[in-house]
Amino acid sequence: MYFDDLPVGYSFETGARTLDLAGITGFAGTWDPQPFHVDAEAAAASPYGGIIASGFHTLLTAFTLTLEADIWNEASMGSPGMDEIRWRQPVRPGDNLRVRAEVVDANASASRPDRGRTTIRYDVLNQEDALVMQFTATHILRRNPEKHAP
Amino acid sequence: MYFDDLPVGYSFETGARTLDLAGITGFAGTWDPQPFHVDAEAAAASPYGGIIASGFHTLLTAFTLTLEADIWNEASMGSPGMDEIRWRQPVRPGDNLRVRAEVVDANASASRPDRGRTTIRYDVLNQEDALVMQFTATHILRRNPEKHAP
Repeated sequence: MYFDDLPVGYSFETGARTLDLAGITGFAGTWDPQPFHVDAEAAAASPYGGIIASGFHTLLTAFTLTLEADIWNEASMGSPGMDEIRWRQPVRPGDNLRVRAEVVDANASASRPDRGRTTIRYDVLNQEDALVMQFTATHILRRNPEKHAP
Repeated sequence: MYFDDLPVGYSFETGARTLDLAGITGFAGTWDPQPFHVDAEAAAASPYGGIIASGFHTLLTAFTLTLEADIWNEASMGSPGMDEIRWRQPVRPGDNLRVRAEVVDANASASRPDRGRTTIRYDVLNQEDALVMQFTATHILRRNPEKHAP
Protein backbone atom coordinates (compact mmCIF):
# COMPACT_ATOMS: atom_id res chain seq x y z
CA MET A 1 0.00 0.00 0.00
CA TYR A 2 1.07 3.56 -0.70
CA PHE A 3 0.56 6.84 1.16
CA ASP A 4 -2.78 7.38 -0.59
CA ASP A 5 -4.13 4.00 0.55
CA LEU A 6 -3.87 4.99 4.22
CA PRO A 7 -6.19 7.95 4.86
CA VAL A 8 -7.02 9.34 8.31
CA GLY A 9 -9.28 6.85 10.06
CA TYR A 10 -7.77 3.78 8.36
CA SER A 11 -7.29 1.12 11.04
CA PHE A 12 -5.73 -2.29 11.24
CA GLU A 13 -4.84 -4.98 13.74
CA THR A 14 -1.71 -7.13 13.73
CA GLY A 15 -1.06 -10.76 14.59
CA ALA A 16 -0.04 -11.63 18.15
CA ARG A 17 3.15 -12.74 19.89
CA THR A 18 3.81 -14.15 23.35
CA LEU A 19 6.77 -12.88 25.37
CA ASP A 20 8.26 -15.70 27.43
CA LEU A 21 10.60 -15.39 30.41
CA ALA A 22 13.76 -16.32 28.46
CA GLY A 23 12.93 -13.79 25.74
CA ILE A 24 12.25 -11.06 28.30
CA THR A 25 15.44 -11.59 30.31
CA GLY A 26 17.48 -12.13 27.12
CA PHE A 27 16.38 -8.84 25.56
CA ALA A 28 16.82 -6.95 28.81
CA GLY A 29 20.22 -8.52 29.47
CA THR A 30 21.47 -6.88 26.28
CA TRP A 31 19.55 -3.62 26.18
CA ASP A 32 17.94 -2.81 29.53
CA PRO A 33 19.50 -4.76 32.40
CA GLN A 34 17.56 -3.08 35.19
CA PRO A 35 17.01 -5.57 38.06
CA PHE A 36 13.22 -5.81 37.62
CA HIS A 37 13.79 -7.01 34.01
CA VAL A 38 16.55 -9.57 34.59
CA ASP A 39 16.78 -10.64 38.26
CA ALA A 40 13.87 -12.75 39.60
CA GLU A 41 14.71 -12.10 43.24
CA ALA A 42 15.18 -8.35 42.86
CA ALA A 43 12.03 -8.17 40.71
CA ALA A 44 10.00 -9.99 43.38
CA ALA A 45 11.10 -7.37 45.92
CA SER A 46 10.35 -4.47 43.51
CA PRO A 47 7.02 -2.63 43.20
CA TYR A 48 6.27 -4.90 40.21
CA GLY A 49 6.37 -8.11 42.30
CA GLY A 50 8.15 -10.09 39.59
CA ILE A 51 10.02 -9.88 36.29
CA ILE A 52 8.46 -7.49 33.78
CA ALA A 53 9.46 -6.92 30.17
CA SER A 54 11.57 -3.91 29.23
CA GLY A 55 9.33 -1.27 27.73
CA PHE A 56 11.66 -1.27 24.73
CA HIS A 57 10.99 -4.99 24.27
CA THR A 58 7.25 -4.27 24.19
CA LEU A 59 7.83 -1.40 21.75
CA LEU A 60 9.98 -3.49 19.39
CA THR A 61 7.57 -6.43 19.56
CA ALA A 62 4.77 -4.07 18.55
CA PHE A 63 6.91 -2.64 15.76
CA THR A 64 7.84 -6.03 14.29
CA LEU A 65 4.21 -7.19 14.50
CA THR A 66 3.35 -4.06 12.52
CA LEU A 67 5.99 -4.76 9.86
CA GLU A 68 4.69 -8.34 9.59
CA ALA A 69 1.14 -7.04 9.08
CA ASP A 70 2.50 -5.58 5.83
CA ILE A 71 0.55 -2.32 5.91
CA TRP A 72 2.97 0.54 5.18
CA ASN A 73 6.39 -1.07 5.02
CA GLU A 74 6.66 -1.47 1.23
CA ALA A 75 6.14 2.28 0.93
CA SER A 76 8.40 3.23 3.85
CA MET A 77 11.16 5.79 3.36
CA GLY A 78 11.90 5.98 7.07
CA SER A 79 10.58 7.88 10.07
CA PRO A 80 11.32 11.34 11.45
CA GLY A 81 10.10 10.41 14.91
CA MET A 82 7.67 9.14 17.49
CA ASP A 83 5.60 10.85 20.19
CA GLU A 84 3.68 10.10 23.35
CA ILE A 85 5.20 6.74 24.15
CA ARG A 86 3.35 5.52 27.24
CA TRP A 87 3.83 2.33 29.19
CA ARG A 88 0.41 1.85 30.77
CA GLN A 89 0.71 -1.52 32.46
CA PRO A 90 3.52 -4.05 33.04
CA VAL A 91 4.05 -6.85 30.52
CA ARG A 92 4.82 -10.14 32.24
CA PRO A 93 6.17 -13.51 31.02
CA GLY A 94 3.46 -15.33 29.08
CA ASP A 95 1.61 -12.20 28.02
CA ASN A 96 0.37 -12.34 24.44
CA LEU A 97 0.63 -8.97 22.68
CA ARG A 98 -0.99 -7.57 19.57
CA VAL A 99 -1.37 -4.10 18.09
CA ARG A 100 -4.41 -2.11 17.08
CA ALA A 101 -3.55 0.96 15.02
CA GLU A 102 -5.25 3.91 13.40
CA VAL A 103 -4.06 6.61 11.01
CA VAL A 104 -4.50 9.95 12.79
CA ASP A 105 -2.85 12.31 10.31
CA ALA A 106 -1.82 12.15 6.64
CA ASN A 107 -0.20 14.99 4.69
CA ALA A 108 1.08 14.81 1.14
CA SER A 109 4.39 16.64 0.76
CA ALA A 110 4.10 19.99 -0.99
CA SER A 111 7.76 20.05 -2.02
CA ARG A 112 8.22 16.35 -2.89
CA PRO A 113 5.29 14.99 -4.90
CA ASP A 114 6.44 11.38 -4.58
CA ARG A 115 5.79 11.09 -0.82
CA GLY A 116 3.69 11.99 2.21
CA ARG A 117 3.77 11.90 6.00
CA THR A 118 1.45 9.50 7.77
CA THR A 119 1.02 9.54 11.54
CA ILE A 120 -0.33 6.41 13.18
CA ARG A 121 -1.47 5.82 16.76
CA TYR A 122 -0.52 2.37 17.99
CA ASP A 123 -2.24 0.65 20.93
CA VAL A 124 -0.57 -2.49 22.27
CA LEU A 125 -3.01 -4.90 23.92
CA ASN A 126 -2.50 -8.07 25.92
CA GLN A 127 -4.52 -11.31 25.93
CA GLU A 128 -7.10 -9.71 28.22
CA ASP A 129 -7.53 -6.75 25.85
CA ALA A 130 -5.86 -4.53 28.43
CA LEU A 131 -3.92 -1.59 27.00
CA VAL A 132 -0.28 -2.10 27.99
CA MET A 133 1.39 0.52 25.80
CA GLN A 134 0.62 3.35 23.39
CA PHE A 135 2.72 5.33 20.98
CA THR A 136 2.39 7.51 17.89
CA ALA A 137 4.79 7.26 14.97
CA THR A 138 5.21 9.31 11.83
CA HIS A 139 6.16 7.47 8.64
CA ILE A 140 7.42 8.92 5.35
CA LEU A 141 5.53 6.90 2.74
CA ARG A 142 5.87 6.75 -1.03
CA ARG A 143 2.90 7.73 -3.18
CA ASN A 144 1.86 5.41 -5.99
CA PRO A 145 4.59 6.05 -8.61
CA GLU A 146 2.13 5.53 -11.46
CA LYS A 147 0.13 8.54 -10.27
CA HIS A 148 2.74 10.70 -8.52
CA ALA A 149 6.11 10.77 -10.25
CA PRO A 150 9.10 12.02 -8.19
CA MET B 1 22.12 9.07 43.08
CA TYR B 2 18.55 9.68 44.19
CA PHE B 3 15.77 11.87 42.87
CA ASP B 4 17.01 14.80 44.98
CA ASP B 5 20.51 14.60 43.50
CA LEU B 6 19.20 15.36 39.98
CA PRO B 7 17.65 18.85 39.98
CA VAL B 8 16.52 20.71 36.86
CA GLY B 9 19.63 21.78 34.95
CA TYR B 10 21.75 18.82 36.08
CA SER B 11 23.61 17.56 33.01
CA PHE B 12 25.87 14.65 32.20
CA GLU B 13 27.59 13.00 29.27
CA THR B 14 28.01 9.27 28.71
CA GLY B 15 30.79 7.16 27.26
CA ALA B 16 30.78 6.39 23.54
CA ARG B 17 30.09 3.33 21.40
CA THR B 18 30.73 2.60 17.72
CA LEU B 19 28.04 0.87 15.67
CA ASP B 20 29.61 -1.43 13.11
CA LEU B 21 27.99 -2.92 10.02
CA ALA B 22 27.49 -6.38 11.52
CA GLY B 23 25.88 -4.90 14.63
CA ILE B 24 23.60 -2.68 12.58
CA THR B 25 22.38 -5.43 10.24
CA GLY B 26 22.17 -7.93 13.11
CA PHE B 27 19.95 -5.68 15.22
CA ALA B 28 17.79 -4.74 12.25
CA GLY B 29 17.50 -8.35 11.08
CA THR B 30 15.75 -9.16 14.34
CA TRP B 31 13.82 -5.98 15.08
CA ASP B 32 13.57 -3.72 12.03
CA PRO B 33 14.31 -5.58 8.77
CA GLN B 34 13.50 -2.70 6.44
CA PRO B 35 15.69 -2.94 3.28
CA PHE B 36 17.74 0.21 4.04
CA HIS B 37 18.82 -1.35 7.38
CA VAL B 38 19.71 -4.86 6.20
CA ASP B 39 20.25 -5.03 2.41
CA ALA B 40 23.35 -3.24 1.05
CA GLU B 41 22.07 -3.15 -2.54
CA ALA B 42 18.59 -1.91 -1.67
CA ALA B 43 20.11 0.61 0.75
CA ALA B 44 22.44 1.96 -1.96
CA ALA B 45 19.41 2.56 -4.18
CA SER B 46 17.41 4.18 -1.34
CA PRO B 47 17.40 7.91 -0.48
CA TYR B 48 20.01 7.08 2.21
CA GLY B 49 22.60 5.84 -0.32
CA GLY B 50 23.74 2.98 1.92
CA ILE B 51 22.94 0.98 5.05
CA ILE B 52 21.80 3.08 8.00
CA ALA B 53 21.12 1.95 11.56
CA SER B 54 17.57 1.32 12.72
CA GLY B 55 16.43 4.29 14.77
CA PHE B 56 15.61 1.82 17.53
CA HIS B 57 19.23 0.64 17.52
CA THR B 58 20.35 4.23 18.02
CA LEU B 59 17.78 4.68 20.79
CA LEU B 60 18.80 1.51 22.62
CA THR B 61 22.50 2.28 22.25
CA ALA B 62 21.84 5.68 23.82
CA PHE B 63 19.82 4.06 26.58
CA THR B 64 22.48 1.48 27.47
CA LEU B 65 25.19 4.17 27.41
CA THR B 66 23.02 6.07 29.89
CA LEU B 67 22.62 3.05 32.18
CA GLU B 68 26.39 2.52 32.05
CA ALA B 69 26.96 6.16 33.04
CA ASP B 70 25.33 5.17 36.34
CA ILE B 71 23.39 8.37 36.90
CA TRP B 72 19.80 7.46 37.82
CA ASN B 73 19.62 3.69 37.43
CA GLU B 74 20.18 2.73 41.08
CA ALA B 75 17.15 4.85 41.96
CA SER B 76 15.01 3.74 39.03
CA MET B 77 11.50 2.43 39.65
CA GLY B 78 10.66 2.39 35.94
CA SER B 79 9.34 4.85 33.38
CA PRO B 80 5.85 5.97 32.45
CA GLY B 81 6.94 7.10 29.00
CA MET B 82 8.97 9.05 26.50
CA ASP B 83 8.22 12.03 24.26
CA GLU B 84 9.50 13.82 21.20
CA ILE B 85 11.67 11.07 19.81
CA ARG B 86 13.34 12.57 16.75
CA TRP B 87 15.75 10.98 14.32
CA ARG B 88 17.65 13.99 13.00
CA GLN B 89 20.32 12.42 10.83
CA PRO B 90 21.16 8.88 9.64
CA VAL B 91 23.59 6.77 11.68
CA ARG B 92 25.98 4.82 9.45
CA PRO B 93 28.39 1.94 10.05
CA GLY B 94 31.44 3.19 11.94
CA ASP B 95 29.64 6.09 13.60
CA ASN B 96 30.65 6.61 17.22
CA LEU B 97 27.73 7.66 19.41
CA ARG B 98 27.54 9.27 22.81
CA VAL B 99 24.81 10.99 24.81
CA ARG B 100 24.58 14.43 26.36
CA ALA B 101 21.66 14.76 28.75
CA GLU B 102 20.01 17.39 30.92
CA VAL B 103 17.29 17.25 33.54
CA VAL B 104 14.42 19.41 32.30
CA ASP B 105 11.78 18.68 34.94
CA ALA B 106 11.75 17.19 38.45
CA ASN B 107 8.67 16.79 40.62
CA ALA B 108 8.53 15.08 43.99
CA SER B 109 5.40 12.97 44.34
CA ALA B 110 2.74 14.49 46.58
CA SER B 111 1.06 11.15 47.28
CA ARG B 112 4.17 8.95 47.57
CA PRO B 113 6.92 10.60 49.61
CA ASP B 114 9.52 7.98 48.67
CA ARG B 115 9.75 8.96 44.99
CA GLY B 116 9.67 11.65 42.32
CA ARG B 117 9.40 12.09 38.56
CA THR B 118 12.44 13.26 36.67
CA THR B 119 12.28 14.20 33.00
CA ILE B 120 15.52 14.19 31.05
CA ARG B 121 16.26 15.43 27.54
CA TYR B 122 18.75 13.19 25.76
CA ASP B 123 20.80 14.33 22.75
CA VAL B 124 22.65 11.63 20.83
CA LEU B 125 25.77 12.90 19.08
CA ASN B 126 28.15 11.30 16.62
CA GLN B 127 31.95 11.59 16.30
CA GLU B 128 31.57 14.93 14.50
CA ASP B 129 29.37 16.31 17.31
CA ALA B 130 26.39 16.22 14.93
CA LEU B 131 23.05 15.67 16.60
CA VAL B 132 21.69 12.37 15.24
CA MET B 133 18.78 11.79 17.62
CA GLN B 134 16.87 13.41 20.48
CA PHE B 135 14.35 12.14 22.96
CA THR B 136 12.87 12.98 26.32
CA ALA B 137 12.20 10.34 28.95
CA THR B 138 10.48 10.46 32.32
CA HIS B 139 11.92 8.33 35.11
CA ILE B 140 10.35 7.43 38.43
CA LEU B 141 13.23 7.78 40.89
CA ARG B 142 13.54 6.87 44.56
CA ARG B 143 14.26 9.61 47.06
CA ASN B 144 17.02 9.07 49.61
CA PRO B 145 15.40 6.59 52.03
CA GLU B 146 17.25 8.11 55.00
CA LYS B 147 15.48 11.40 54.43
CA HIS B 148 12.19 10.36 52.79
CA ALA B 149 10.70 7.18 54.20
CA PRO B 150 7.99 5.44 52.13
